[in-house]
Amino acid sequence: MSTTVPKLGSGIKFVHDYPVPKPGHNEVLAKVLYSGVCQSDLHTQAGVASDSRGNPITKVKLPHVGGHEGVGRIVAIGPGCDDDIRLGMFFASRVCRRCEFCLAGKEQHCIKSTNHLHHEDGSFQEYIALDAGYLTILPDDIDPAVIGPVLCAGLTTYKAVKNANVKAGDWVVVVGAGGGLGHLAVQYARAQGAIVIGIDGGASKGDFVKGIGASEYIDFTATPDIIKKVHELTGGGATAVIVTAASVKAFEQAADMLKVGGTLSCVGIPSEKGYLLTPISAIVIKGLNITGNLVGSLKECLEAVDLVRRGVVKPKVSIRPFEDLPKIYEELEKGEVSGRVVLKIAKDE
Amino acid sequence: MSTTVPKLGSGIKFVHDYPVPKPGHNEVLAKVLYSGVCQSDLHTQAGVASDSRGNPITKVKLPHVGGHEGVGRIVAIGPGCDDDIRLGMFFASRVCRRCEFCLAGKEQHCIKSTNHLHHEDGSFQEYIALDAGYLTILPDDIDPAVIGPVLCAGLTTYKAVKNANVKAGDWVVVVGAGGGLGHLAVQYARAQGAIVIGIDGGASKGDFVKGIGASEYIDFTATPDIIKKVHELTGGGATAVIVTAASVKAFEQAADMLKVGGTLSCVGIPSEKGYLLTPISAIVIKGLNITGNLVGSLKECLEAVDLVRRGVVKPKVSIRPFEDLPKIYEELEKGEVSGRVVLKIAKDE
Amino acid sequence: MSTTVPKLGSGIKFVHDYPVPKPGHNEVLAKVLYSGVCQSDLHTQAGVASDSRGNPITKVKLPHVGGHEGVGRIVAIGPGCDDDIRLGMFFASRVCRRCEFCLAGKEQHCIKSTNHLHHEDGSFQEYIALDAGYLTILPDDIDPAVIGPVLCAGLTTYKAVKNANVKAGDWVVVVGAGGGLGHLAVQYARAQGAIVIGIDGGASKGDFVKGIGASEYIDFTATPDIIKKVHELTGGGATAVIVTAASVKAFEQAADMLKVGGTLSCVGIPSEKGYLLTPISAIVIKGLNITGNLVGSLKECLEAVDLVRRGVVKPKVSIRPFEDLPKIYEELEKGEVSGRVVLKIAKDE
Amino acid sequence: MSTTVPKLGSGIKFVHDYPVPKPGHNEVLAKVLYSGVCQSDLHTQAGVASDSRGNPITKVKLPHVGGHEGVGRIVAIGPGCDDDIRLGMFFASRVCRRCEFCLAGKEQHCIKSTNHLHHEDGSFQEYIALDAGYLTILPDDIDPAVIGPVLCAGLTTYKAVKNANVKAGDWVVVVGAGGGLGHLAVQYARAQGAIVIGIDGGASKGDFVKGIGASEYIDFTATPDIIKKVHELTGGGATAVIVTAASVKAFEQAADMLKVGGTLSCVGIPSEKGYLLTPISAIVIKGLNITGNLVGSLKECLEAVDLVRRGVVKPKVSIRPFEDLPKIYEELEKGEVSGRVVLKIAKDE
Repeated sequence: MSTTVPKLGSGIKFVHDYPVPKPGHNEVLAKVLYSGVCQSDLHTQAGVASDSRGNPITKVKLPHVGGHEGVGRIVAIGPGCDDDIRLGMFFASRVCRRCEFCLAGKEQHCIKSTNHLHHEDGSFQEYIALDAGYLTILPDDIDPAVIGPVLCAGLTTYKAVKNANVKAGDWVVVVGAGGGLGHLAVQYARAQGAIVIGIDGGASKGDFVKGIGASEYIDFTATPDIIKKVHELTGGGATAVIVTAASVKAFEQAADMLKVGGTLSCVGIPSEKGYLLTPISAIVIKGLNITGNLVGSLKECLEAVDLVRRGVVKPKVSIRPFEDLPKIYEELEKGEVSGRVVLKIAKDE
Repeated sequence: MSTTVPKLGSGIKFVHDYPVPKPGHNEVLAKVLYSGVCQSDLHTQAGVASDSRGNPITKVKLPHVGGHEGVGRIVAIGPGCDDDIRLGMFFASRVCRRCEFCLAGKEQHCIKSTNHLHHEDGSFQEYIALDAGYLTILPDDIDPAVIGPVLCAGLTTYKAVKNANVKAGDWVVVVGAGGGLGHLAVQYARAQGAIVIGIDGGASKGDFVKGIGASEYIDFTATPDIIKKVHELTGGGATAVIVTAASVKAFEQAADMLKVGGTLSCVGIPSEKGYLLTPISAIVIKGLNITGNLVGSLKECLEAVDLVRRGVVKPKVSIRPFEDLPKIYEELEKGEVSGRVVLKIAKDE
Repeated sequence: MSTTVPKLGSGIKFVHDYPVPKPGHNEVLAKVLYSGVCQSDLHTQAGVASDSRGNPITKVKLPHVGGHEGVGRIVAIGPGCDDDIRLGMFFASRVCRRCEFCLAGKEQHCIKSTNHLHHEDGSFQEYIALDAGYLTILPDDIDPAVIGPVLCAGLTTYKAVKNANVKAGDWVVVVGAGGGLGHLAVQYARAQGAIVIGIDGGASKGDFVKGIGASEYIDFTATPDIIKKVHELTGGGATAVIVTAASVKAFEQAADMLKVGGTLSCVGIPSEKGYLLTPISAIVIKGLNITGNLVGSLKECLEAVDLVRRGVVKPKVSIRPFEDLPKIYEELEKGEVSGRVVLKIAKDE
Repeated sequence: MSTTVPKLGSGIKFVHDYPVPKPGHNEVLAKVLYSGVCQSDLHTQAGVASDSRGNPITKVKLPHVGGHEGVGRIVAIGPGCDDDIRLGMFFASRVCRRCEFCLAGKEQHCIKSTNHLHHEDGSFQEYIALDAGYLTILPDDIDPAVIGPVLCAGLTTYKAVKNANVKAGDWVVVVGAGGGLGHLAVQYARAQGAIVIGIDGGASKGDFVKGIGASEYIDFTATPDIIKKVHELTGGGATAVIVTAASVKAFEQAADMLKVGGTLSCVGIPSEKGYLLTPISAIVIKGLNITGNLVGSLKECLEAVDLVRRGVVKPKVSIRPFEDLPKIYEELEKGEVSGRVVLKIAKDE
C-alpha cells in the first residue's frame, strides 16, 4: 500500500511490487500476519498527526505504508542478531536507549524515537524490517490474530489503569467502554480488581460492556444526568475515570464523576485542539490527579500481553481481508466500528 | 470584628464587647496572639467562597469573625481535655474523624468539616474556642509571630512540593515565587533538594527570590518567552511546576514548561471560574501529571512547621497592628502586599 | 469468662454475674453476637504477649476477658455520641488520635493505644463498652457470623497483600495457605489480580486452597524442594511471598522463592524469639524488600470488610458455642484447627 | 596487571605487554585515566565472589584485570557507533536489554550481564574496550579524578537513600559514615533534605563526618548504648538506617534504631555468610521495611553524578600511583583506608 504521489492525504493505493527490505545490522525481517487498524492510522492517512513532543509531524516518510499494530513471524535475521525471535512487533519501532526516558524504562517517550505511524513504513505490507533489539517478542501460545490491538490499544489502556493506581474494590469509570480502547480498559481495570462502570451510547453496547466484566452500564443517550448517576452508583464518586473517547465533553465531565483525591486518566485525544476544561478550583479543592498516557514501555506491553495469554483479558476483534482497508477507514470516520478491526495480511506457512 | 448587619460583604467592623466563648466538652479556650491574613479571608469578607465540595458556601456564620492562620495560647480547658496544650490552631477547626478521608489521614477533605473561613468565628479576635482534638500543637521553641502563615500557606506549599515527588537535583519552577505562598514554595522545594527557578514580576523581587534559595529568577515582565527560558535553563523542561499565582494564564503556560512525565502542582485558585487550559493532547503525549492541593493534613502541617523550627524554611512576614486589617485588605486587593502580613492580636502574658 | 485468681495463665472460667459496663462519655454499649478466636487470644491466656513496642506486656488487666474479633450490636450510647452506629468493633479499642502514627492513618501503631488482648476486657462476654470514635461500623448487609475474623486476620492479610504492591498477573506465594490467616491472604491476593501459589501440608488442604482461588498448590510434606518448585511454576521466582505461618523455617525459605526485586511480606510471628534468617548478601544482591504487617488501620479494615461484603473474599469459619472455648484453645495448641473458629456469644434480638 | 598462572588468588602482577583490545561492533576503545579501588576488587583478587543470583562466581575470566570504577576518554570507536562519547564507563559492562529487569530500568539485575569484576578485564589497565550502548557518558565539566568512585560507591549509596524514601526533615542514620561508601551516603541523604546521624569509630572520624554534613556523630567506640543514643537524638527512632559497614552486628542493631514504619537500607555485604539477625516479631510489630541495594541503574548513576557535578556531593578521594595497588589492597584488608582510593592509570593527552 502506498501513494503514487508522495503527499499525505492523497488516498490509499495497493501496490504489488513494493520492495521487500533487507534486514540490516541488528535487524530482522518479519512476515506480517495480522495488523490492527487504529484511529491513528486514519489520522496519518488524512495528514493529521503530532509527534511525541506535541508538535505537528513534518518528517513523514513518503510514500508511506500505514499500520502499527502488526504481528508477524521472523523469516530472516540480519548480522548481529542472536535472539530467538519468532513473533511480534511494537508501536515505536526504534528507540535510542540512551536518552533519560529510554534509561528510565519510559522509552515510548524517547527523544529520538521513530515509529511506523510516521517515520517508517508500517505493518500494512507483507514484509517489514524491524530493530531486533526493540521487538515485542510474543509467547508461543498466543493467538496472533487477536494480539495486534493489544500492542497499542491494549498497552495504552493497561497503562492508563496502572497510572490510576487502581486497587481491588475501587470504582473505576470507563468512558467509551464499548470501543476498541474502552473494551480493553474495562477488562484491564477488572483484572486489577476494580468495580467498573462502563459509559457508552445505546442499549446494545450495554450487553457487550456488561458481558466483558463491567458491573454497571450507563447509556449516555438515555441517562439525563450521568454525573449524578455515577455518584449514586459509587456512593460519592469514582476513584478513577478513564476517558478513552476522543471527546472534549467526555473529559469535561470526568472530574465531576471523581471523588476527593480521584484520578482522571486521559487516553483519547480529541482531534481538534481540545482543552481539558476542568475548573482549577475543582482540581485544587477536590485534590484531584490528572494523568496522561502515551502507550507504554515494552515492559508494560509484555505485561499487557501476558494478561491476554492467561485469558484474563479477551480482545474483541473482527478479522477482515487486507483489501477492506479503504472501507474500514470510511467506517472509522463515520464511527461505525465497534471493537477493533484486524486485517489479515499474509499467510503463515 | 463583625458586621452589624449579618450579611457578607457589608464591611468590617471592630467590636469591643464580642462575647468570650466558653470551652465545651473536648474544647480549649485560646488567647490569640497572632494571625496571618490570607487572600481567602478577603474572599469570605467579599462574599465570594466555595466549600470543599466545589459548591458556593451558603452556610457562613453571621456575623462572622475572619482569620484562619491564628496562633494562640491555651488559657482554659473544657471538660474531657487532658492534653498538655499550649499553642496552635489550624485551618479546619472541626473534622468528623469517621469519614473515609479522616480515616485516610486526609482530614482536610472531611465531608463534615467546619472551618474558620466560613462556619465558625476565626482568629481575628482575642479569645476563641477550639476542638482540643484537632489543634496543631506547636513546639515550645517556635516563634509565634511567624508561624501563623505556615499553618495554611506553608502547609499548602509543603504539600504541593510533596505531591510533585521532588527529589534532589530536580528542576522545580515556582510561579509567583515572591508572594506569600510562592516564597514558601521556593523554600520547601529547596528543602527537598530541588533546584528552583522562581518566576515573578519585577527586578526587585528577583533579589528576594534568589535570597531565599532559588538558583534562577525569571522576571516575566522583562522576558519575551518565559517557556523558552525555562527550557534553556533546565535543558529540556522542568520536573515540576508549582503555580501559586491565582492566574489562568500562569496555569495555561505551566504544562509547556514541563518535561515528559513532569508534574503541574496547582495551588492558586483563580477567583473567576477559571479552566485549566491545557491541551488534552499535551497531557497524553507528554505523559503529564496534574495534581491539586488543598492545604494538607495535620500530620503534614506538623512536618511543615518542623522545617521552620529547624531554620530550613524562613517565612517572611510583616507584623502589623490589628487595626490595620481594613487597610491590609485594600492592599491585598490591589496586589500591593509582598510576603505575608501577620496581625498582632492580643498580648501574651 | 474470667479467672478468679487475677493471674494470667491460671485457666479459663465462665462467670455468670460479670458486671455489665456503663458506656461513658463517647462510648457505646454493644451486645456481642459473635467473636473469632485467634492464636493471640491463646497467647494472652497462656501469659505470653508483647506490646506494639516489642516489649513484654506487663499491664494486662486482670481478671481478663479475652477476645478481640468481636461483632456486636449497639444497644446503648453514652453521652457525646451522635453517630448512627449499629454493628462492629475493632482490635485496637482505644487510640490517642494525636501521635504521629494516629495522624498518619497508621493508628494501629498508636503509642498510647490500649486493646482487648491485654489492657481491656474483650469480646468473650455478652456486653462490652467501646470507644464510639474508633468502632469499625459495619454495613447493614454483612453477615455478622463470618465478619469477626476479618477485623483482625482479614485486615492483617489484606494489608500484607497491599504492602507487597501486588498487581494483576504477579505471582504471589502464600505460605500457610490453608490456615485462618492464609486462606484470607490467598483470597485478598486473588482480589488484586495476582496468580497465587498456596503452600501448606497435606493433600486435603490442596483442594481447599485451590477451591478458594489459588492456581497452584504445593504440599510441603510431599515436595522434595519447594523452592525449586516455586521457581519452576513462576519461571524465575515470585513477585511476593506472604508468610502467614509462625515458623522460622518458613521465613528462612521465603527469600529464595522471590525473584529479583521481590517482596517478603511477614505476617506470622514465631512464638519463640525467631530471627529472620535471610542472608544479607541475598537481600543486597537480589534487591529484595522485606516488610512487616501489624493488622492495619480502620480505613484498611473497612476496605477489607467491603471485599467480603461484595462476595470477592469469603471467610471460611466454623461457628461453635461459647462453651467450647476451652476445647478450641486445646485444638489451637495442637494445630488441629483449619480455617477460623467463631464463637456464638449472645442472641441478636 | 594480570596473573601469569590463570588462577584467582595467585597474586598481583604488573604486565607491560598486555594486548590493547580492538573495539568490535558497537564498542569503543577507552584510555583509562583513573580508577577507584573497591573492596569488591579485593574480594575478586582473593577469589571470593558471588554473582547477581547469589551463587558463587565460577566463570571469572583468567588472567583477570581488576578494577570497575574506571573513568577514561574514548580514543577509538568500532563500527556501528555514532554517539559523541568522550568519558565514562560503568560497573556492569554488558547488559542484554531484553530481560524483564533491563526493560524495567533495573538493568543492574540483568540476567545475562557480564561485568568487570569477574567476566571481563576491568579498569586497572591503560586501554579497555567497552559496550558503546552502556557507557556512563559523563558531562564535560566533571573532574575525572574524583568521579570514579561515584560510578559504584556513589551510585550504591544514592540508590540506598532513594530506596529509603527519605524526605526533608527525616532522621537518617548512616552506619560506617566515615568510609568510602558511608561518606557518600551521608551526603546523598543530606542532598534529599535529611537530618543525618553518622556512626563510626573514633573521634577523628567525627570531625570528618560532621564536616560533610552530618548533624550528629556517634562514636561507637565511646558510646555505651548507641541504640539508646539514636532514640534520644531523634525522639523516638530514625526514619531510615543505612548500613554501609560490612558487619553482621551493625545490621543486627539497625532495626532497633528505627521508629515504627522505618526502613533499613542494606548496602554493605558481610564477607562471611552473614544472616540479617532481626527478630521477625520486631519486623511485624513495628511494621518495618528492609530493602537491599545492588548499585543502581545507568539512569540513577547519571543522577548521582549530576549531584557531584553541581557540588552538592563531594567525594573524598586520595589519588595514588597505579604501582601502589598491592599496598592499597593490604591497607584495605587491614581496614586502614579512610575515604576512597583512586589510582592514576594513564595520562590524558
